[in-house]
Amino acid sequence: MAKKIAVLAGDGIGPEIVAEAIQVLSFLNSDMALGLSFETALVGGAAYDAFGTPLPQQTLNLCKNADAVLLGAVGGPKWEPLPHAVRPERGLLGIRSELNLFSNLRPAILYPQLAEASTLKPEVVAGLDIMIVRELTGGIYFGQPRGIRLLENGEQQGFNTLVYCESEIRRIAHSAFKTAQKRNRKLCSVDKANVLEATELWRQVVTEVGKDYPDVQLSHMYVDNAAMQLVRAPKQFDVIVTTNMFGDILSDIAAMLTGSIGMLPSASLDANGKGMYEPIHGSAPDIAGQGIANPLATILSVAMMLRYTFNETAAAERIEQAVDTALDAGVRTPDIYSEGMTQTSTSGMGDAVLNAL
Amino acid sequence: MAKKIAVLAGDGIGPEIVAEAIQVLSFLNSDMALGLSFETALVGGAAYDAFGTPLPQQTLNLCKNADAVLLGAVGGPKWEPLPHAVRPERGLLGIRSELNLFSNLRPAILYPQLAEASTLKPEVVAGLDIMIVRELTGGIYFGQPRGIRLLENGEQQGFNTLVYCESEIRRIAHSAFKTAQKRNRKLCSVDKANVLEATELWRQVVTEVGKDYPDVQLSHMYVDNAAMQLVRAPKQFDVIVTTNMFGDILSDIAAMLTGSIGMLPSASLDANGKGMYEPIHGSAPDIAGQGIANPLATILSVAMMLRYTFNETAAAERIEQAVDTALDAGVRTPDIYSEGMTQTSTSGMGDAVLNAL
Ligand SMILES: CC(C)[C@H](C(=O)O)[C@@H](O)C(=O)O
Ligand SMILES: CC(C)[C@H](C(=O)O)[C@@H](O)C(=O)O
Repeated sequence: MAKKIAVLAGDGIGPEIVAEAIQVLSFLNSDMALGLSFETALVGGAAYDAFGTPLPQQTLNLCKNADAVLLGAVGGPKWEPLPHAVRPERGLLGIRSELNLFSNLRPAILYPQLAEASTLKPEVVAGLDIMIVRELTGGIYFGQPRGIRLLENGEQQGFNTLVYCESEIRRIAHSAFKTAQKRNRKLCSVDKANVLEATELWRQVVTEVGKDYPDVQLSHMYVDNAAMQLVRAPKQFDVIVTTNMFGDILSDIAAMLTGSIGMLPSASLDANGKGMYEPIHGSAPDIAGQGIANPLATILSVAMMLRYTFNETAAAERIEQAVDTALDAGVRTPDIYSEGMTQTSTSGMGDAVLNAL
Repeated sequence: MAKKIAVLAGDGIGPEIVAEAIQVLSFLNSDMALGLSFETALVGGAAYDAFGTPLPQQTLNLCKNADAVLLGAVGGPKWEPLPHAVRPERGLLGIRSELNLFSNLRPAILYPQLAEASTLKPEVVAGLDIMIVRELTGGIYFGQPRGIRLLENGEQQGFNTLVYCESEIRRIAHSAFKTAQKRNRKLCSVDKANVLEATELWRQVVTEVGKDYPDVQLSHMYVDNAAMQLVRAPKQFDVIVTTNMFGDILSDIAAMLTGSIGMLPSASLDANGKGMYEPIHGSAPDIAGQGIANPLATILSVAMMLRYTFNETAAAERIEQAVDTALDAGVRTPDIYSEGMTQTSTSGMGDAVLNAL
């Protein structure tokens, strides 16, 4: 049986970076007889332009029937004036929710070759390797009721609901503890239990689940402190698990610590290893179409796909090593360029990885 | 009429640092005939221990009848097992809410004398001077309904409500625009309007209010990006205005960029200039009672009080200059100590400021 991958290039630089990732994956597919097949579809602004919705039914069906989804990026100023319900982001959020991709893994790794790019002092970030596990299908992102209503006094009122039930917290906690077991066995759960009851329950359930993982050292931190500690001493962390909203913020901080968000992949997994894989950076409309975007985050997302969905560890490692080799050789897209290196284009970087393979 | 200040030392290092601030303020009070009078009361864990509640009625009354409140810090591990409703934090949140202190000003300033203390590269933070304006009496901190309930399937569910109405957004927006007018006339409003309807309304109302301030350059940023930008290039910001929850997180990041959160004051103001003033750092139970806490954030909070509540600009500037002089002289509490400086205690630092006056 062929292993099916839905390829959703999306908006902005999406098509350019996804093309390079597919080139790398196609090569390995034949070289290692991985048995992968690809099918493409529109999502986000591109889908809205074609079909009037950011997540057409055929795209969703394709994703549901696939074993994995490769996503470029969605969004751009062109679609910002649109009503909420049809904005590009809804396409992304719709896939997360419809496919039950509740566990979002966002590694923040500092590449030694790019250490200079960080705005933090070298000693603070050298060797940084954190994994953020973000709950992705619950919390305030999806909670009901929500909306904007007219009050009796004539004022508008906007409201959203932060809500978590035990089972939602329990499954993401298990996911995080298991992730920690494969790493340095330290898990920090981030909440705002001193103010928000929803995260008081979060803390309680994570603590309970922790009893099943006596080999993992569990700690708890309030979100404001965690944000601070990421800036002060990020290497104190191994794995961080947190809610959808806090994970959105903390994972971006962690990514920025590395100085090269053009390098960072992500995986969004369901309970059975099916997943969506995407770079953590956005659609970068300002540089779209210029052939200068960094494809490495997307290429590394493919490596995550091979590892997490297809259990092709050897193939994943080959990609990661090829990226390393390309960096060692000194090729750099503009976003990671520094003096003395060789500047290259999106496809130049893709080719460098391919050659290294 | 005497100008009344309610002094709430609170928990942990609170009493130590407040004592130094009061010493400084008392000196100026007689030196400049400011006409201030002080009255103390318990709050937080200390109040719980004495009265079984973190915000006794007599403390609240004192605060309500005062012109300004000076707060040390609340909380500590001792009170963490307590039920939500009587935890030290509720004392703080209660005062904010009962006194309608909706506008929380949190400056993040890098002191050139302490530039080394930042974990960020000097060129990224040199001269940093940001003001975060945080909405403090609304949003998810106070929204109803909230709690933990039992679902029919036997699971617990935790829930909170993020809610803002137009008038709440409007008043904090005005406060932020006015703050920006006194600074570099750049205001960045931070929301998550692409996901949360409550902050979609936020963006809409801030934009409307902006029409009254054509001299202020208004921009909007999503919270994940703002967190990233604070790490990447913090000097792009002048004033940031945001919701209660996002402000909690972003102001701690901004503070940590300076490397010396022991230096940063804050003001929480109502519509009439009445305010509560407190250091942004916490109660630091680990070093409480040792006489080594840094009193400068509290001393600088007093300067903010003189400026914002009592319009005593000259007195405020005298304090700020005295702090500068003390730093120039090389005295340092342990948290800001670096080689070649003279290490001192809490009271040593207080005296250094007093001498400089
Ligand atoms: C585009 C947006 C809806 C999304 C999110 O908030 O989850 C993005 O910021 C992310 O982190 O993947
Ligand atoms: C102690 C806590 C309730 C408080 C808050 O979350 O507002 C604190 O973190 C702060 O920022 O003043």
